[in-house]
Amino acid sequence: MRSTRRAVDVADLVARAREGQVRAVARLISLVENSEPATLRTVAAALAPYTGHAQVVGLTGAPGVGKSTTTSAVVTALRAEGKRVGVLAVDPSSPFSGGALLGDRVRMQDHATDDGVFIRSLASRGQLGGLSAAVPQALRVLDTARCDVVLVETVGVGQAEVEIASLADTTVVLLAPGMGDGIQAAKAGILEIADVFVVNKADRDGAKQVSRDLKYMQSLGGRHSVAGAWRPPIVLTVASRGVTADSGVDHLVAAVAKHRDWLERTGELDRRRQARAAAEIEAIAVGEVRIRLGAVHGSAALGVAAARVVAGETDPYSAAAELVARL
Amino acid sequence: MRSTRRAVDVADLVARAREGQVRAVARLISLVENSEPATLRTVAAALAPYTGHAQVVGLTGAPGVGKSTTTSAVVTALRAEGKRVGVLAVDPSSPFSGGALLGDRVRMQDHATDDGVFIRSLASRGQLGGLSAAVPQALRVLDTARCDVVLVETVGVGQAEVEIASLADTTVVLLAPGMGDGIQAAKAGILEIADVFVVNKADRDGAKQVSRDLKYMQSLGGRHSVAGAWRPPIVLTVASRGVTADSGVDHLVAAVAKHRDWLERTGELDRRRQARAAAEIEAIAVGEVRIRLGAVHGSAALGVAAARVVAGETDPYSAAAELVARL
Repeated sequence: MRSTRRAVDVADLVARAREGQVRAVARLISLVENSEPATLRTVAAALAPYTGHAQVVGLTGAPGVGKSTTTSAVVTALRAEGKRVGVLAVDPSSPFSGGALLGDRVRMQDHATDDGVFIRSLASRGQLGGLSAAVPQALRVLDTARCDVVLVETVGVGQAEVEIASLADTTVVLLAPGMGDGIQAAKAGILEIADVFVVNKADRDGAKQVSRDLKYMQSLGGRHSVAGAWRPPIVLTVASRGVTADSGVDHLVAAVAKHRDWLERTGELDRRRQARAAAEIEAIAVGEVRIRLGAVHGSAALGVAAARVVAGETDPYSAAAELVARL
Repeated sequence: MRSTRRAVDVADLVARAREGQVRAVARLISLVENSEPATLRTVAAALAPYTGHAQVVGLTGAPGVGKSTTTSAVVTALRAEGKRVGVLAVDPSSPFSGGALLGDRVRMQDHATDDGVFIRSLASRGQLGGLSAAVPQALRVLDTARCDVVLVETVGVGQAEVEIASLADTTVVLLAPGMGDGIQAAKAGILEIADVFVVNKADRDGAKQVSRDLKYMQSLGGRHSVAGAWRPPIVLTVASRGVTADSGVDHLVAAVAKHRDWLERTGELDRRRQARAAAEIEAIAVGEVRIRLGAVHGSAALGVAAARVVAGETDPYSAAAELVARL
């Protein structure tokens, strides 16, 4: 009996993704999202030579600040410059896979027929509610597809905003007036992660106050006063207007480009990417060890060791050392 | 030049702890809390033969429900039965070490001169605000000191209550009327972890309502309707009265003893302890691997691998596999 499943020709998919074929890009992202480890490794190895070009831009903020609207307007502005753009929408809290999510994002559909734009959503499969381990690989797929900029949009809930900062070259934190928790959220660490602040819905009451509060908080910080340091600009936008003379979206795009220049000029881009790669390698290695230890399904060796600890025949440190030695 | 630090005679400390010498117990707990890995391993190995006797009882609940008062009353009741009792107060949110914490616990001082009671607090040193890795070892010290029951008191904030459930044979969840968040907290997972519920401050308005709400929530659960399953009892207490005919503390102590009987009769005690030991071994092993990978200080090998990933010369999965192979 022959298998009806055809082996995936990863090299062919990568070649077609390089040519910008949307279906190949979609297929590769599905592979990194859903594959068993062997396929995932094959894909990762095939993508490696083609990565490092795209600027990864994270956009995060509380629900309701207008992340999707802003993302869509930024895509429009980047397309007007002739740039190829990838969009990854990551929703760490959603148990649903991508399709349903993007179906709601009407504005994104403006770009659905543009073959210079690749849009994909990823549901979180990460442990502890974190971002999926597939996100960095999906970024590499979009990079391989010759995107100049990849926008990663996440809901700024819990640790997600910190995690996105660990994935992005440039992190954009969105706030909006009247959210109540705008500055509250800001206090909880976004000052540390933001490379660019956006006060969206700037036509509403309170936008200038949000901007003033941010400036005040920045003045308390101090780390930006070092010569040559990047001081995160605060851009006011009305993203719902799209790319117009008064929407501020062009200023946002300019701020993101300026940050990229700064990253390259100072060597910070390589530093960030190396730290990111080191963290990714470490997480994969630890995950590999965890699998080998049989943590996922409970290996016999771990069970035997645990029983010996319970019986007082050994202690957990000795048992752990024995297991590690056997790896 | 001779070192002025004397080597610790762990075997002697353990022998004296077995005899119930308070200073030896305190010294061993300090060792597991503050030692470098080599000493920690020596202590763990020396304790192993003497563990498994004590029933570990976790007490958790929101600030203000009366955990310290209840713990103290339970100690009094257990002492009246002639039991030896250990108390570990763990405060995951406190940056202060134990002394200061227990200094506030006036009620605990009732037991300060009782040589059948060992009281110790541990500050959290755990990552991500979690419980200290020293807690299981500190439990083993008190077990070694022939405690019949070890009470572990934690503030029910965030993940701490779930973590304590993973350490305890029996988990007691305390609620109180008028806390507002009593049932709210209950919704967030305590139904899953509680073996015994306590509604403390039962002389106050609303105590019966809290009890009714809990019963209703239990009725929705369903898992307790399986024949032979443990259905967590709800005990009403006024722990501030101490051990009196109407304080309910005796009922709480009886419920805890009944749970221990159930654990032993059903084999659940061994199952829980083996699962706990397996998780502990795994965490130690993964921590060991993480150290070997140089995560803490950033080894040259990891940095080189990261640079190769950034340069597109390899992918993170291949790099991780190489590092793991070298372990």
